[in-house]
Amino acid sequence: MTDKAKHVLALSGGVGGTKLALGLADELPDGELHILVNTGDDFEHLGLHISPDIDTLLYTLAGLANQELGWGLADESWNTMDSLERLGGETWFRLGDRDMATHLWRRQQLSTGASISEVTALLAQRLGVTAAVYPMSDDAVRTMVHTAAGNLAFQHYFVRDQCRPAVTGFSFEGISAARPNRQVLRRLQDQRVSRVIICPSNPFVSVDPILQVPGLWLALRDNPAPVILVSPIVAGKALKGPAAKMMAELGVPATALGVAQHYCSRYPGLLDCFVIDDSDAELANEIGSLGLQVAISSTIMKSREDKQRLARFTLDILEE
Amino acid sequence: MTDKAKHVLALSGGVGGTKLALGLADELPDGELHILVNTGDDFEHLGLHISPDIDTLLYTLAGLANQELGWGLADESWNTMDSLERLGGETWFRLGDRDMATHLWRRQQLSTGASISEVTALLAQRLGVTAAVYPMSDDAVRTMVHTAAGNLAFQHYFVRDQCRPAVTGFSFEGISAARPNRQVLRRLQDQRVSRVIICPSNPFVSVDPILQVPGLWLALRDNPAPVILVSPIVAGKALKGPAAKMMAELGVPATALGVAQHYCSRYPGLLDCFVIDDSDAELANEIGSLGLQVAISSTIMKSREDKQRLARFTLDILEE
Repeated sequence: MTDKAKHVLALSGGVGGTKLALGLADELPDGELHILVNTGDDFEHLGLHISPDIDTLLYTLAGLANQELGWGLADESWNTMDSLERLGGETWFRLGDRDMATHLWRRQQLSTGASISEVTALLAQRLGVTAAVYPMSDDAVRTMVHTAAGNLAFQHYFVRDQCRPAVTGFSFEGISAARPNRQVLRRLQDQRVSRVIICPSNPFVSVDPILQVPGLWLALRDNPAPVILVSPIVAGKALKGPAAKMMAELGVPATALGVAQHYCSRYPGLLDCFVIDDSDAELANEIGSLGLQVAISSTIMKSREDKQRLARFTLDILEE
Repeated sequence: MTDKAKHVLALSGGVGGTKLALGLADELPDGELHILVNTGDDFEHLGLHISPDIDTLLYTLAGLANQELGWGLADESWNTMDSLERLGGETWFRLGDRDMATHLWRRQQLSTGASISEVTALLAQRLGVTAAVYPMSDDAVRTMVHTAAGNLAFQHYFVRDQCRPAVTGFSFEGISAARPNRQVLRRLQDQRVSRVIICPSNPFVSVDPILQVPGLWLALRDNPAPVILVSPIVAGKALKGPAAKMMAELGVPATALGVAQHYCSRYPGLLDCFVIDDSDAELANEIGSLGLQVAISSTIMKSREDKQRLARFTLDILEE
C-alpha cells in the first residue's frame, strides 16, 4: 500500500544509479519519486557549469539518453568539439552539440542568481521529467581523487585520465560548509518519506559525497523510513564504472560484503536492508551479521524490464 | 612600388567591408595588410563574448565563411540552437555548432586575462589568417542604436529586430574611456603606413565607432599616409546592410554624396580620396567640391575577381 503522503527518496550518482532510478520512475505513480543526486562531480569547464550526474539522470528519465555511449544525448553531433580541437581548445571532456545547449542554458539561469536546485527543477520540467530531482546541495562540493600521482579533480581522474591512476583515497572540497538540499531535508523532517533507496552507484564518489553533506546521513538514519541499498558490486565486478577497481586499490574486498562493510563502518545504523545479486547469495550470512536484512534478487539491469523488476523488488521489500 | 616598411591599413566592419578586405589580402604580399576592425558590435550573449565583425573577417580571410548565409561558418550545423530552443533559451542570435567553438575558445582565452587584441591575433593564427587583424580597442565599446522605440543594443536592433525600428541616431557606450589599439597607433606614429583604406562598411555603425575611439581619427588625419574611402552606397543602395535605410531615416541623402558629406563634416581633413561606383559618376563634381579626389570604378564585388580588382584599383590610386 502506497501512502500518498509518503514518497520514495532515491539517492543516485550517474550512469549506474540512474538505471534503477529509471525503473523506480516507471514503477511509481507520478509525483511519488524524489531523487537526491551527487553534485561532487560538477565542475566548471569552458566557462560552463557541468553537472554530469544530474544531466545523466535527467536525460535518462526524459528518454533522451544516448544508449550506445552510455552518457550524453541521443542523436548527438560533435561539431563544436571538432572545431574546438582545430583551434587547440580543450576537448578531453566531450560536450555534444545538443548537450551544449543544456550547459549554456544552465549557465544563463545561474547567472540570474538562481540556485542549482532551482535550475535543476526547471530543467527537469523543460525536459518533461516528472520525478523530483534535487542536487545534494546548492553549495559547491568538489570530489578530489587522491592518487599516487597527486590529487585529481574528479573529471580529470574519471574522463581525462580514464580512471588509470591508482586510488589512495578521496576528499570532498567544500563539504564541511555545504548545506543539504532543503526540500529533501524538510521532507525527511516532516516524515513524508516512506523508504530511502540508495541506487547502485559508486560508494566512494557518488554516494559518499551525498551522505557526507553535513546533517544528511543522520537525517536519513534518524528517520523512520527504512534505508535500502542496492549493491553496485555483483560477483566482484562493478555494475558500471571504477568502483571495483577502487576497492581493490584501497585494499578493500571488491565484493558486496566489502560494500556493506564500507557503509556500516562509515554510517553506523544507516542501512536497514541490502539488496545483493543472486550470484552473491553466499555472502548473505556474513552481510546479515553486520545487522542488515539481506534481500537477494537479480540486480543486473540490461533491459527496461530488468530496471522495472528490480525497482519493484526494492519497493516491495519490508512491505508487510 | 611597395615600400616594404610601409604597409596598408584597412578599416573594416563586418560583411560589406570584409569583401574588400579579402581582395586586399589577395593582392598584397603576406604581412603587408593590417586591418583595424569595429568591435562596437561585440556583446555578451549566453555567457560568451561574441565579436561579430572580427569573426566575419577572420572566417572570410580563412576561406571558412558561409557563402549562402553571408555570415558564420561554412558546413555549419545548428543542433545547439535547436536544443536550446526546446529548453526555452534565447535563440534569436543564431550561433552555429562550429561557430560556437570560436566563442567558447575566446571566452576561455579571455578568462586567463588575455586582451581582445591578443585573443584575436591568436585566433587569426589558429585559423591560418596571415593578415594582421586588430580590434579597434581592447576596451569595451557598445554601439547603441537610437530609435523611436528607445535605445537598442546593436545586435538587438540588427539581428533580433532585423533593422525594423526607424533610426534617430547612435551612441557608443564606453567610447570616451576607450584606448585605441596600441599596435595600430604605434604603426601610425612610426609612419609605417603607406595608405589607409576605409572599406565599404556602414559609416554609422561600423566605421564611426572605429574613428571615434579617442585619438584615432586624428592620428589617421595627421599621418602622411593618404586615406581612401570606398563608398558603401552605390546608386542609392547599400552594398550590404541597413546603411541606406539609416541615411533615409536620418534625413541624409542616401547617396555616395551623403556618405562623403558625413565623413567631411565629422572628420574634417581626414579623407584624401573617395572611390565611387561608375553608376554614381555624376556625383563626382559635387563630391570633389568637398575637397576630395574622386576615383571612379566598378565597386560591386560579387566574385573573388571583383574583390581583387577593386582592391588593386584602390591600392593603385595616388601611386605616381
